[in-house]
Amino acid sequence: MSKREITAEVISIGDELLIGQTVNTNAGWMGEQLSLIGIRPVRVRVIGDDRQAIIDTLSTATADVVLITGGLGPTKDDITKLVLCEYFGTRLVRHPHIEAAIAGFFRSIGREPLEVNLAQADLPETCTVVPNDRGTASGMWFNKDGRVFVSMPGVPYEMKAMMEKHVLPELRSTFNPPTIVHRTILTTGLGESHLAQRIAAWEDSLAQDEIKLAYLPSPGLVKLRLSTYANNDPFGARDRVARKADQLYRLIPELIFGEGEERLEQVVGRMLKERNQTLSLAESCTGGYVSHLITGVPGSSAYFIGGVVSYANAVKMEELGIPSDMLELNGAVSQPVVERMASGVRHALKTDWSIALSGVAGPDGGTEEKPVGTVWIAVAGPKGVQAAKVYFPRTQDLVIKRSAVATLNMLRRIMA
Amino acid sequence: MSKREITAEVISIGDELLIGQTVNTNAGWMGEQLSLIGIRPVRVRVIGDDRQAIIDTLSTATADVVLITGGLGPTKDDITKLVLCEYFGTRLVRHPHIEAAIAGFFRSIGREPLEVNLAQADLPETCTVVPNDRGTASGMWFNKDGRVFVSMPGVPYEMKAMMEKHVLPELRSTFNPPTIVHRTILTTGLGESHLAQRIAAWEDSLAQDEIKLAYLPSPGLVKLRLSTYANNDPFGARDRVARKADQLYRLIPELIFGEGEERLEQVVGRMLKERNQTLSLAESCTGGYVSHLITGVPGSSAYFIGGVVSYANAVKMEELGIPSDMLELNGAVSQPVVERMASGVRHALKTDWSIALSGVAGPDGGTEEKPVGTVWIAVAGPKGVQAAKVYFPRTQDLVIKRSAVATLNMLRRIMA
Repeated sequence: MSKREITAEVISIGDELLIGQTVNTNAGWMGEQLSLIGIRPVRVRVIGDDRQAIIDTLSTATADVVLITGGLGPTKDDITKLVLCEYFGTRLVRHPHIEAAIAGFFRSIGREPLEVNLAQADLPETCTVVPNDRGTASGMWFNKDGRVFVSMPGVPYEMKAMMEKHVLPELRSTFNPPTIVHRTILTTGLGESHLAQRIAAWEDSLAQDEIKLAYLPSPGLVKLRLSTYANNDPFGARDRVARKADQLYRLIPELIFGEGEERLEQVVGRMLKERNQTLSLAESCTGGYVSHLITGVPGSSAYFIGGVVSYANAVKMEELGIPSDMLELNGAVSQPVVERMASGVRHALKTDWSIALSGVAGPDGGTEEKPVGTVWIAVAGPKGVQAAKVYFPRTQDLVIKRSAVATLNMLRRIMA
Repeated sequence: MSKREITAEVISIGDELLIGQTVNTNAGWMGEQLSLIGIRPVRVRVIGDDRQAIIDTLSTATADVVLITGGLGPTKDDITKLVLCEYFGTRLVRHPHIEAAIAGFFRSIGREPLEVNLAQADLPETCTVVPNDRGTASGMWFNKDGRVFVSMPGVPYEMKAMMEKHVLPELRSTFNPPTIVHRTILTTGLGESHLAQRIAAWEDSLAQDEIKLAYLPSPGLVKLRLSTYANNDPFGARDRVARKADQLYRLIPELIFGEGEERLEQVVGRMLKERNQTLSLAESCTGGYVSHLITGVPGSSAYFIGGVVSYANAVKMEELGIPSDMLELNGAVSQPVVERMASGVRHALKTDWSIALSGVAGPDGGTEEKPVGTVWIAVAGPKGVQAAKVYFPRTQDLVIKRSAVATLNMLRRIMA
């Protein structure tokens, strides 16, 4: 690389973050935005609303860009602005046009501004004020010792607008960072370590094309992210990544279900929509979770008709037409029952496709023959019904999530 | 307080945290657990899988307790263990009993362990190994310069079990931090600022009993956490908190549904279990989420029979016996339809109680009359059916979560 890499760090200020009252989603979001414009996030530090902690943290910053959030509210415990004045050797001055904007904002919602509200127009004399289009706490941009420091409010909705509209464009034009080309390939069906073994030779070959690979696992899935610097040749970089991605598609075609931010339920939904087909669902051990996933996709009402959550055997018999002797003979967690669940709900709701799950999600109900984590899954469609047994010996939550992925993937593969 | 305060900091290691692929929920959870046992969290630092960053971060730790998560996986980019060896001046040695446990774990799920899996039994010679009951990456406890360092896996499910079973008890006995008495009272039905206004006088009275109050809001709920130092008199402290809790129960009886970690679906489940009654469910806009909540409670099969997810109107008509003219006349999101959904599923599945939801969760489907966020909810029981309209003008996810809470709370109040 010809260019020096630009680095960034985030300082999140707030007692509520330290004790787990608020999950720090800001830092990760900012890191993602920074890396997308080619600035590398190297550190996040979370500290309380404490003068000494803020000074110590600012003075040990090492990155080119230091993004600070939190502690800009009107209440007494929000001290960030005062500490910034101390650290940058300046003082607060009232900005009349910001004071007017704050007063106008309060009057627009039918309230008189209090002095604590107007005091949000007191800002450090030497900073460049960053406008807040969604609230009353302005951002502050400082330059010191070759570094940029930007202080922003901690409210995600305000911070995100400030970043997108003002801070990220300004950072781009200030630092002109190297462009990074990314591509994320989504896989399911093999755990991280087995997948790594399967594609080890391919992974080793990435280095000579200066491509980096990251494994990003979540229950039932492993995302593979390829990235490389564009080095003033974005088309060439995209080609380099595309060649390696093509090799991966040839290597593990059955494991790849999509790219980018796509979810498996979206992929399946898109296939159904394209074919103008419908889906129904019968689930027992997953208790509505698969339905919840499917209906979380905007536009799912175009293909998802509905489903039955058959928690008790009585529901399996009555709603899905499963003979009681079939249940007695095989138990609810069995191939004949899950197949009948799938074809039963497909018939009752008159859909092209249906999926069904019946298993022991735990924590209770396991037997030696069918331990907790045993799940039968089935797909019924125009050409008949197929079933498979999966086994995920984990917590109830993980059994549910992983069987959901397995079932949606089974549908995807049968439809493909 | 006579005793010196014990402080803690968290170091979260992982590139995926910096670039926002994974939200760092671990650090906040650990901070909460530490503060519950009287250890004060003062800082979180998030860094990448980078040798120098890890060394720099470890060597600038200032707290008594340093908890480290992440970077313990079997793949090449997980380097934490090697860097810990370097920093603590030790080397990896294979622990045969851990190797055997890893091999046993893999065989129990029907797989042969790979050498990379067995290599997780290579652990620093000078550390105390902390058992991982839920995975194959052991924890490591080190003492250096008067500080305790504990390295744990980044998988929340594994880390939490390790913290609860081993690390927190060991920290307690090592540091003997001042005992804090907590009590968390769970409310629903009033937002944070209105609730604060309602209990303002009671809140002001807490100071003279040296009790602190924290508001912990989440969708549809506000938890009120009372805490005080025991100061060598745990019984007296518990009494002080109990007196204030009793006052709160008298002040807002209709808003309180439970205490501690209890969830609304558990409270309702317990009531059903005690009365030996059953529940069924018909949901449309929530698409299986309420069912998912109910079946997430261990033992729910004792009272939850099943449900219908009626996403398409056809399902409402066929499975729940709703006349087509009723749907045409009122629309699916209406009082007559939601009442018929509740009584229909109660009748079809022969349960004592049933709940039903029909609404516009968004992002599409809103009209001027029924904007996104409008949800009709109903409870049917031995004494008939009741319905209510709720309105949560937010994202689909929040509409679903808040209607679920509203419906379960409606059932709780009607059963009470």
